[in-house]
Amino acid sequence: MMEMKDLRKTLRLYLVTDRALSMGRELEWVVEEAVRGGVTMVQLREKDSDTREFVELARRLQPVLREAGVPLIINDRSDVALAVDADGVHIGQSDMPYEIARRLLGPEKIIGLSVENMLQVKEANSLDVDYIGISPVYSTTTKTDTAPPFGLEGLREAVKLSVHPTVAIGGMNAATAPEALKTGVNGIAVVSAICSAPSPYLAALELGEK
Amino acid sequence: MMEMKDLRKTLRLYLVTDRALSMGRELEWVVEEAVRGGVTMVQLREKDSDTREFVELARRLQPVLREAGVPLIINDRSDVALAVDADGVHIGQSDMPYEIARRLLGPEKIIGLSVENMLQVKEANSLDVDYIGISPVYSTTTKTDTAPPFGLEGLREAVKLSVHPTVAIGGMNAATAPEALKTGVNGIAVVSAICSAPSPYLAALELGEK
Repeated sequence: MMEMKDLRKTLRLYLVTDRALSMGRELEWVVEEAVRGGVTMVQLREKDSDTREFVELARRLQPVLREAGVPLIINDRSDVALAVDADGVHIGQSDMPYEIARRLLGPEKIIGLSVENMLQVKEANSLDVDYIGISPVYSTTTKTDTAPPFGLEGLREAVKLSVHPTVAIGGMNAATAPEALKTGVNGIAVVSAICSAPSPYLAALELGEK
Repeated sequence: MMEMKDLRKTLRLYLVTDRALSMGRELEWVVEEAVRGGVTMVQLREKDSDTREFVELARRLQPVLREAGVPLIINDRSDVALAVDADGVHIGQSDMPYEIARRLLGPEKIIGLSVENMLQVKEANSLDVDYIGISPVYSTTTKTDTAPPFGLEGLREAVKLSVHPTVAIGGMNAATAPEALKTGVNGIAVVSAICSAPSPYLAALELGEK
């Protein structure tokens, strides 16, 4: 098993998938290109797939990710994560309660939690989550059901407050990443900046150099 | 734990929930009334809920169901079933593959499988599923993504072919139940015939007498 539990470096460039934003290209190709470009972690997010399709897609991504030593995180679905023996799950505030996800997955798996305000950052401090996703930093069209954005100052404050490794999500791209990373956040999570890029490989490469 | 593994009697009147068809009434109330009217099994089906909401709803139904000795089956989601220690899951052909669901839930839990044609009835015979749902018997407006209906003769044939306990679903109501039950099927599964009934209690009572 790869070294998972100090995620500070592994969170550096975190791809969250979105098939609808992948411009009609196969998600496997997008992920493979992104990994080749330097993505350090991948979250498979499938909100509209049947369970079987979700499982099969996760399995198709695994060889490339394992070869590259890049953890595969499943959005929300502990059953899918268990089915494919993924490296962990990412849960939001309306997903499976953290304690239950931990019980289902066991102590070794990675569990990340989205936090949408300072109170949730504090609450996460009392849980043994492996990282928090600070969401959203900026408002974005990728997710429309998000809380008010943290902004750069809010991100800095959240990072300072958190005892956990942190990743910034929401409006992260080549233009916004440098300032975000200066706050001390361990990494940035991107969706469209890679999934919708003409070359996911070049997009990942560029983001990794910020 | 209740006697679960011979389900032939327990399948007799199987309520599959649908909040959208519950005429604006609380699902807890609909289920409680239906159980009072004689429902023998309940499947919680929540296709559009957040995971947390699904878990909380399952937990709210459990006291009434446990009190009545009525098994709670979770549609598709093994993670939700594990989270609340439900009595089992029901999976369709595009849900979690049976073998994985069994591995996640262990040998004691109930796992039901929907079959949509004779080939799938045969395939199910080679699996240790606890029951099959023969779906749909008649076409219905409750589910629009279903296969061509079995019809009464197809139902009879499927029941004869199956080595497992059987339940008929799709277009089952007080008018269609008597003929369906004459095929030898162990039970009928209903959605709107109870969820949308003016009195779920009376509807269940009437269906139980067929």
